[in-house]
Amino acid sequence: MKAPKTKALNIPQRVLLGPGPSMVPSRVMSAMTAPTIGHLDPVFLPIIADVQDLLRYTFQTKNRLTIPISGTGSAGMEASLCNFIEPGDEVLIGINGYFGERLYEMVKRYGANADRIDRPWGEILPAADFEAALSKKKYKLLAVVHVETSTGVHQPDIASIAEIAHRHGALFVLDTVASLGGVPVKVDEWDLDVVYSGSQKCLSSPPGLAPITIGPRAEKVLEERTTPVANWYLDLKSLLTYWGEPHSYHHTAPVNSIFALREALRVVAEEGLEDRFTRHRDNAELLWAGLGSLGMDLLIPEEFRSPTLTTPLIPDTVEDMDVRRHLLEEHNIEIAGGFGPLGGKVWRIGLMGHSSSEQNVKLLLSALGEVIKI
Amino acid sequence: MKAPKTKALNIPQRVLLGPGPSMVPSRVMSAMTAPTIGHLDPVFLPIIADVQDLLRYTFQTKNRLTIPISGTGSAGMEASLCNFIEPGDEVLIGINGYFGERLYEMVKRYGANADRIDRPWGEILPAADFEAALSKKKYKLLAVVHVETSTGVHQPDIASIAEIAHRHGALFVLDTVASLGGVPVKVDEWDLDVVYSGSQKCLSSPPGLAPITIGPRAEKVLEERTTPVANWYLDLKSLLTYWGEPHSYHHTAPVNSIFALREALRVVAEEGLEDRFTRHRDNAELLWAGLGSLGMDLLIPEEFRSPTLTTPLIPDTVEDMDVRRHLLEEHNIEIAGGFGPLGGKVWRIGLMGHSSSEQNVKLLLSALGEVIKI
Repeated sequence: MKAPKTKALNIPQRVLLGPGPSMVPSRVMSAMTAPTIGHLDPVFLPIIADVQDLLRYTFQTKNRLTIPISGTGSAGMEASLCNFIEPGDEVLIGINGYFGERLYEMVKRYGANADRIDRPWGEILPAADFEAALSKKKYKLLAVVHVETSTGVHQPDIASIAEIAHRHGALFVLDTVASLGGVPVKVDEWDLDVVYSGSQKCLSSPPGLAPITIGPRAEKVLEERTTPVANWYLDLKSLLTYWGEPHSYHHTAPVNSIFALREALRVVAEEGLEDRFTRHRDNAELLWAGLGSLGMDLLIPEEFRSPTLTTPLIPDTVEDMDVRRHLLEEHNIEIAGGFGPLGGKVWRIGLMGHSSSEQNVKLLLSALGEVIKI
Repeated sequence: MKAPKTKALNIPQRVLLGPGPSMVPSRVMSAMTAPTIGHLDPVFLPIIADVQDLLRYTFQTKNRLTIPISGTGSAGMEASLCNFIEPGDEVLIGINGYFGERLYEMVKRYGANADRIDRPWGEILPAADFEAALSKKKYKLLAVVHVETSTGVHQPDIASIAEIAHRHGALFVLDTVASLGGVPVKVDEWDLDVVYSGSQKCLSSPPGLAPITIGPRAEKVLEERTTPVANWYLDLKSLLTYWGEPHSYHHTAPVNSIFALREALRVVAEEGLEDRFTRHRDNAELLWAGLGSLGMDLLIPEEFRSPTLTTPLIPDTVEDMDVRRHLLEEHNIEIAGGFGPLGGKVWRIGLMGHSSSEQNVKLLLSALGEVIKI
């Protein structure tokens, strides 16, 4: 069998303004190419301790169990569910977009009885819906998405929903894939039990790792399981024997990806969370104003609009794909289309992490202004 | 909550002669830092097609379903099992080391009835054992490790065991984590059904991806499942909607890790498999002779010894940890100790991928000669 002929890699530098991945700072890329070393090398152990400390800061938590999962955000989602679910458990999922649906799909695979609270894509999930559902039936776990990447909705009342969950004896799981590092996520103050994210959105590290943090209530549920976690790779109790003492082997840690994440989190720490959130907010407001000036309406009312992901309605006068192709091919700018019920109706413009800059907003508005006039 | 203070990364350049990760060529590191782009960018689609072609060459297969899983080798192992197992299935695992045990542990988590064929760590699994077991009972799936990273055994008769499995109606799963790219792995010629590996051993890409290939028999079993795969992230049928047409979204592909793997596989293709195997063999023989000259015996008889991982018995005159610490601290050389029943009894010296060079062998022999004389 002959070896296929391939060419050396030649990748254009895109302006990444889609729903992720976001642009990666060069210092993060440099850190990623530090020499590969063994995952049990004594030099590597302080590195993983740093990553855990930096993640605790980013999540605003003191949780002992705070690590990156060796997979993308979806692996983080799955780890957040499979570790706490045993067959037959009652689980409630809030669904107002694609990632709520994904939570529901995963939960069923682990043998849970899954109920759903549905709201149309683009709307928020009212806290009262959860109060009503939990008053009627006992659930072990309740999961919600903080910023729905499919719609741009920034779910409010997270602390209230967590309080409702706890008052009714349920764990509260929050998806912060499109929010962590871009808008406030206060794990301890909001009293969240399980929170996960992805490396490639508002943290601006390359895709491939999923930060996760587990609070004391969830830790207790983990301890009290009577069946093994139905997933070997994502078994948190085993993972913690590597990330904490005695640092024993579970799987080969993706050391270079961890170098990158550590550097990306150092960037977060150096900027400071508050300044980072302000930057995301300021650039989003610039984008919103600019889109308004171009005559475009936004799907989500400002009150519930995430600064990390904006969803303008596509003007009737243009073709979705034509505009996106033109932006990509002529301007090297990536934005995304809608999908599901929003397919062809909205664009999804991400201003996440390193991608959230005044320069990028102006670049996009200028290019978009040019394209939609054609 | 205050941001933790951390220092810029400062990682020594180790000579990686443990059981993995191996040393990564600089051109692979460079490829990994190509600009992050969207996983649905039209520029990225030919890249993933290349990766699949290069993996087919490396696996020596025409299998359509040949992709890297977005996790480490253990995720590849889990994907190779969970996609083909439904609750109550009868599964047989050959166990002569740690990774056989891991296969057994995973299989049980998916609700299979798992039987085992045991041989002591360091021995091979005789094909006759499988013939005997499969003659007595019907199994859906049989799994074996090609090169046991815990012992250095290079399992012979792979094609014969595959033939036995098929004659008795079972799928044959092979773990090639420590063999692919270092010793022959002929997926089509040996008629293997499911084969997985890791990026960080004989392929010398950073850890984080797990190549996998699925033959027609296994594809049929996948089609005929009556229950959903009990693992969302590793569900091959869903993964294939991204890696093949229509390239729809499943999870955010780890694009930079894929850039790295593509370049590592191009290195494999440029060297050519035969020359690569010869290099691994030649350098291993140099190591074996050198260890002999230092008065050390090897655990595995030459007939069943893998060129990718050598396990010398630790001389009575030295302390395991002292020697390894000295090698690491004074010479920047990583080798590993044994574990389980081989803990304190052997060292594990990997000559995998880019780490397999005459220079590295000489460096290690010189350093080891110095240390064990102290």
